[in-house]
Amino acid sequence: MSYDNDNIFAKILRSEIPSERVYEDDATLAFMDIMPRADGHVLVIPKGAARNMLDATPEQLAACLVTVQKIAHAQIKAFNADGTTLQQFNEAAGGQEVFHLHYHVLPRHEGIRLRPPGTMEKPELLKEHAEKIRQALS
Amino acid sequence: MSYDNDNIFAKILRSEIPSERVYEDDATLAFMDIMPRADGHVLVIPKGAARNMLDATPEQLAACLVTVQKIAHAQIKAFNADGTTLQQFNEAAGGQEVFHLHYHVLPRHEGIRLRPPGTMEKPELLKEHAEKIRQALS
Repeated sequence: MSYDNDNIFAKILRSEIPSERVYEDDATLAFMDIMPRADGHVLVIPKGAARNMLDATPEQLAACLVTVQKIAHAQIKAFNADGTTLQQFNEAAGGQEVFHLHYHVLPRHEGIRLRPPGTMEKPELLKEHAEKIRQALS
Repeated sequence: MSYDNDNIFAKILRSEIPSERVYEDDATLAFMDIMPRADGHVLVIPKGAARNMLDATPEQLAACLVTVQKIAHAQIKAFNADGTTLQQFNEAAGGQEVFHLHYHVLPRHEGIRLRPPGTMEKPELLKEHAEKIRQALS
């Protein structure tokens, strides 16, 4: 299993494709999932190449999880959430669709299920949610 | 939100409750989930106190993810799996039931869904699956 440099998240990293970025540091980038399963659904990825968790370096795993934690706290503040669900998929059988390591960070509210996957969010709403998260991070 | 030293995983760490352990190091423990959603479903936890991802230290997050990766590779080998799903729940709204940080590491096969949660596995089958993972790790 190899890394394809033309996957969509690699293109987002190179800004060849637009994304609603909420946070970045030397090692990681966090941006809005365009098909959110909950309001404020963010993806965290390493900036370096990694197909998924199976070929990631310990440094990539550590850096991603620190960013995931930061995003989770910001989401809770921004959306007054009661909890967070973290999901990470490896290979197609594991649920992976884009082959660049990514963590789904999902703000959760009591009694509210995740929405089914696959529905595109309106860009203006993604922008609004991203802004809330950026403000909570600042 | 505080850490309750009498949660079931704290008791497993202190060996007050039995568990089917597959791996441990200074910072982490991996053991079989007694209600597996796939054959070989393992939980990875830090040895130190952490309620969930929200209050974990960067060191705990990093150590857990390195063990998660190790377990995922062993599961793929042991069960000839095609992929891995990682889930981690924070607070009840996020899906958390035991309030000690834990990562669900689930071996996946093409076209096979996760089983619904909540069904206890036969102890002898858990033992057999644990042994396969231990062998793949050795």
